[in-house]
Formats: sequence, C-alpha cells, structure tokens
Amino acid sequence: MTPMSADELEARLRDIGARRYHRLHPFHRLLHGGGCTKGQVQAWALNRYYYQAMIPVKDASLIARCEDSATRREWRGRLVDHDGAHAGEGGIARWLKLTDGLGLDRDYVVSLRGLLPATRFAVDAYVHFVREKPLVEAIASSLTELFSPQIISERIEGMLRSYDFVTAETLAYFSQRPPQAERDARFALDYVKQNARTRETQQGVLAALEFKCDVLWAMLDALYHAYVAPKHLPPGAFAPPD
Amino acid sequence: MTPMSADELEARLRDIGARRYHRLHPFHRLLHGGGCTKGQVQAWALNRYYYQAMIPVKDASLIARCEDSATRREWRGRLVDHDGAHAGEGGIARWLKLTDGLGLDRDYVVSLRGLLPATRFAVDAYVHFVREKPLVEAIASSLTELFSPQIISERIEGMLRSYDFVTAETLAYFSQRPPQAERDARFALDYVKQNARTRETQQGVLAALEFKCDVLWAMLDALYHAYVAPKHLPPGAFAPPD
Repeated sequence: MTPMSADELEARLRDIGARRYHRLHPFHRLLHGGGCTKGQVQAWALNRYYYQAMIPVKDASLIARCEDSATRREWRGRLVDHDGAHAGEGGIARWLKLTDGLGLDRDYVVSLRGLLPATRFAVDAYVHFVREKPLVEAIASSLTELFSPQIISERIEGMLRSYDFVTAETLAYFSQRPPQAERDARFALDYVKQNARTRETQQGVLAALEFKCDVLWAMLDALYHAYVAPKHLPPGAFAPPD
Repeated sequence: MTPMSADELEARLRDIGARRYHRLHPFHRLLHGGGCTKGQVQAWALNRYYYQAMIPVKDASLIARCEDSATRREWRGRLVDHDGAHAGEGGIARWLKLTDGLGLDRDYVVSLRGLLPATRFAVDAYVHFVREKPLVEAIASSLTELFSPQIISERIEGMLRSYDFVTAETLAYFSQRPPQAERDARFALDYVKQNARTRETQQGVLAALEFKCDVLWAMLDALYHAYVAPKHLPPGAFAPPD
C-alpha cells in the first residue's frame, strides 16, 4: 500500500472526528440541550474530573518518551495549562470550581470514591495507551482536541441557557480551553502529518484517534447506563440526591 | 488499626462476593433466565472471549512477578488450563466452541473487531492491575473464582433449559471450570490469608477483590447498554442480526 499524502491523512483524521467524536453521543445531546437533572450534571462533572486529573499524568508520560527537546518543550505547555503556575490555577483547579458550583463536596470528588469503575478503566486505558504505543500514535491520540472547540461552544451556550444551577463562573474551565486546544491540536496534527509517512504508521495514527474517541464515548455510555436509563448504578458509585 | 484474623479477612472477602459479584447483575439474570435473544447471547460470548483470551496473559504477568518457584509452579497450572497442552485444547479453545456453536465467525471473534471498547478497557485494567499492584493484591484479584462455581451451575442449567441454540457441547467450557476454579481459589485464598498480615495489606486485598468485581460488573453494564437497553451501540461494535 502506498502512503497517503499528508492532506489525505488529515482528511481521514477529521472524518473520524465527524463520525465518532463524543459530541454525537446521546448523553451530550441531553447535557447540552437542557435534558439533564442536576444529579446527572453532577455525575458527569464528577466522572469527568478523573479524566481532567489524569491529563497531566498522560502528558508527562508522553514527554518522558520524547527524545528531542523541542517536542518536550512544546508539550510541556500542556502541563502548565492543566496544573497551573501556582496552586489553585490551571485546568484541574477550574474543573473543581465546576464541581464546587454544582454543589459537590470537593474532598469527595478528589477522593474518586464515587467514580464509575468504567470511567476509571477508560481513562486509565488512555494513559496506558500513551505510555505503550509508538510515540506518533500517542501524539495522535490527543487529536480529539481538533474537535473540542465546537463541543465547548455548544456546551457553554446550552448549559448556561438550560440550567439555573450553572453560571459563567462555574464554566470558567471551558472558556479558557478553546485557544489552548487549538494551539495544541495544530502542533500535534503537524507532528503526525510529518512523522507518519508509511501506510502502516498512518493506519496506526488513524486507529489511535479512533481509540481515543472510544475512550470518550465509553465514558458517556457508562454515565448514560448509570444515570439516565436504566439508571442501573454500579455498587459504590455516586448516587445523586434527585 | 490492628490486623484482622485470617478468618475475619476471609469472611470480609466472601462478603464482597455476596454483594458485588456479577452474578447479581441484571444482564446475568436475563442470560440465565432465558430472557436474552440469540443476538444478545452472541454479544455476551463475543465480548467475554476477550476476557478469556487475556487470562493467560494476566496469569503469566503474575508468574513473572513471583520470586519463589513454588508459587510460580502452582500458578503455572492456570496457563495449562487456559492454553491447553496442545492446539485446540484448553479454556480459550473451549470458549471458541461456544462462539462457534452460537453461529459466530471464528475469525471475526478472534479479530476483536466487534468488541465493545468498554470490554477492552475493563479487561486491560485487570491485566494492568496484576502487573502493577503488590503481588498479594494481584493474587487477591483472582478471588472472584471463589464465587464462580455457583454462577456456572446456574448458567449451565439456565442456558440449556432456555435456549434451543445452546447445547451441552457448546457449554463444555463451563463443565470443566468448577474443579479448576475451586483448586485455584483455595490456593489464592490461602496465599492471601498467609501473606496479608497488616491492616494496610488486608485493606489492599479487600480493595483488589472489589476492583475485580468492578471489572466483571462493568463488562455487563456495557453489554446491557449496547444490547438490552437503550441498545445504544458504540461505533464499530458487533451488531447482532436480530
């Protein structure tokens, strides 16, 4: 098989996003369309917290595998974005403002005691993927950020319009993310286009993005099963008051 | 905190099984009670295949961590049980007789193309757990076998009674398992009782069994969501003909 051109590879990557990104998941339609109870929004934020909390672990694992200073330096910006320059800053701290604003106890959120096991398995699968797969695939798995600015704008608009328990302040995480995601996605896309030159490597890159879409999708499947229908809560998971 | 006695530890482990083993999951009630369509039984067998296929990988990972010959020798029996003495023998081969008997294409099953991503994440979480956690916790995570003889007898009886597409021959996997599981569970339980002597280690052992129950439970949650209700199939997953 001859390799794809870089532009064809990009088109195939964008097509995966168009078909498999979690924007299309029924849980997000409910969340953004105002169809969730407060308890369901809490469950989403609580579970998604673990994803947020593990992102710098994932990114540090990736940096640890880079042999060139330039890539490490570039990727290091993600650590700053998520962990902040000081305590109380950065993406994880902003996510905790969201869970605070939703009335969740911060110690409980951070303890992960109420997490759905499926959330943990999906997020950990992502971290292991980045540790174990070829570097170009690890980088490609971040490319869901190509599609996140759109979902974030839908989310901010839909949630502010629909839920009186959500404010612009509690959604501060999202207002910060789009320019970071755009910068990061551009770097990762350029890296992948430059470094995936054989058909086999390109197939690996496409599979990596599908894998990452599966991670995000499986997290919403688990939320839907536990909190929307049939509301079948796994033992020990967060039980919303409503 | 003072350590528990070995008998108290065993009682706490058995209590976890009584509350959290997947025998209690609604999907198993459907499966064993005759409430599944053939497509749902196929989806169960196809997904569970990945669990079966990874068991020897898990067991070899555990053996690789044992520093004494006696434990390695004992645990090696599990490799024989699952991989067989020759091609076509052992637990994985018997599981493929089940998927054959259900009319699934063997190459398709083995390719894992139709697997639910959540199945992969849960099973891989188990393998990673065994590789990364303290050895006594890795061994404790196998203790769901304490509870498997009961579920297997319910399964054989219920499935033979309920489904005309299931025969004793296709269920051969299960008729072989109870004595193996009883022998293995006895060894693992004795090991854990002898080696978990501090309260902290004992808490780790209890958490390990809860973790393993979560793995099995999450696999059934994902099956339920995709194939029972709301039948919301993740992109690319096996789509039953019925």
